[in-house]
Amino acid sequence: MIVSRSVAGMPKYSGNCAVVTRSKELPATRFVTSPGGYTSRVTDEETLHLIEMVYRGKINSEIVRGLQRRGVNAIGLSGMDGGLFRAERKEAIRVVENGRKFLLRDDFTGKVTTVNVALLDLLLSHGYRPVVTLPALGTEGDALNVDLDRAAAAIASAVKATAFILLSNVPGLLRNVEDPDSLVTRIARSELKDANSEYAVDRMKKKLLAVEEALDGGVPRVVLGTANIDHPVRHALAGNGTVIE
Amino acid sequence: MIVSRSVAGMPKYSGNCAVVTRSKELPATRFVTSPGGYTSRVTDEETLHLIEMVYRGKINSEIVRGLQRRGVNAIGLSGMDGGLFRAERKEAIRVVENGRKFLLRDDFTGKVTTVNVALLDLLLSHGYRPVVTLPALGTEGDALNVDLDRAAAAIASAVKATAFILLSNVPGLLRNVEDPDSLVTRIARSELKDANSEYAVDRMKKKLLAVEEALDGGVPRVVLGTANIDHPVRHALAGNGTVIE
Repeated sequence: MIVSRSVAGMPKYSGNCAVVTRSKELPATRFVTSPGGYTSRVTDEETLHLIEMVYRGKINSEIVRGLQRRGVNAIGLSGMDGGLFRAERKEAIRVVENGRKFLLRDDFTGKVTTVNVALLDLLLSHGYRPVVTLPALGTEGDALNVDLDRAAAAIASAVKATAFILLSNVPGLLRNVEDPDSLVTRIARSELKDANSEYAVDRMKKKLLAVEEALDGGVPRVVLGTANIDHPVRHALAGNGTVIE
Repeated sequence: MIVSRSVAGMPKYSGNCAVVTRSKELPATRFVTSPGGYTSRVTDEETLHLIEMVYRGKINSEIVRGLQRRGVNAIGLSGMDGGLFRAERKEAIRVVENGRKFLLRDDFTGKVTTVNVALLDLLLSHGYRPVVTLPALGTEGDALNVDLDRAAAAIASAVKATAFILLSNVPGLLRNVEDPDSLVTRIARSELKDANSEYAVDRMKKKLLAVEEALDGGVPRVVLGTANIDHPVRHALAGNGTVIE
């Protein structure tokens, strides 16, 4: 399972794995922080439709196009398509702003509950390469925003992936976010929680939460690698980046 | 096979058929007319990406969402996805403008050459309902704009559909486009070409070309029906609209 943040970082594709796409190319939206320090995008209905336009219509299409050009029979899917991944809507999310705690309602976000492994197996066994993106399918048949790193972790667990690779614009977990040479190269599973509270900031906190969920879900090995080089997947699979196992 | 122009006209869905989506919700683009009187959208690379955003990201997602809400396990696909339908790029298109004929090049349009029936069968036989839209997959792995009514006709022929229904904002072929009561209710296959040159204007000309291609492709019955009522598919299948067989 591969997570690719941008098309620039699109891996030279090979093998029997799926690609999950996310993007920052959304119009300015509100981000909130939970009491635990995790940031989330606030998702009203308009933002949700923009997510469909940008994630599914633009970025996912670009990756499918890039793979088709390389002779890979890619197939783009959101969680809505064939109920590929389903989520339960959060009734309210706990937020801290300027030291004040409150509950945010009317938010179209959720947490992945089930993955349609049968659909992935069906496509993979017939030579198709799923490229997966947002949104998730809600219990009422509605679309829901979910954290895509965590959704990818849920998918990696569900398909019993042998490795889960998260590519981003940094080489992995950094001791000092300003210093690309401060890479943490190995984290033992037992040290993951400590590493998260000690070193991770912003998005990386949630990435490490996704890592934890993938390991809990039975994935034996996770690599946080850079997308900004040639063959980023091969590079990460070779152990370059932050390896957690 | 169902062609739906807009979400407002989305059929109450039932049965073992696919849905093809198109939309007019694109920014102002240039239309040209062929010597035969058929209009086409001029497609530069930017327009092609807008087509992906709007057709695949917006309209297709809305229909998938609407079907999922009604308990139908819809799966949205463009021609790019799994090579669902492939097209050959036109080297140049012949255009007439202000009485002057010329060749237009650098246009990302094509004509559907093959349909991946195996993928449609695979999904349909496992309970998924394909919702199909633009663009097509080109021979170089690139995206191509094609006429969606004609693509739908190619798909209907390929899957050996028993009926091909084209829904739009008019009740069918009108003798006088200004008068909704001038509906042509039946056209024999042998009279189709004459009916096209006699009554059809603008988009309807190409719809009738698609009808002809579906009949030539072995589809026994085509209905042009209105999308602007409840149960438009049932309505059209009952013979309301213009029936060509």
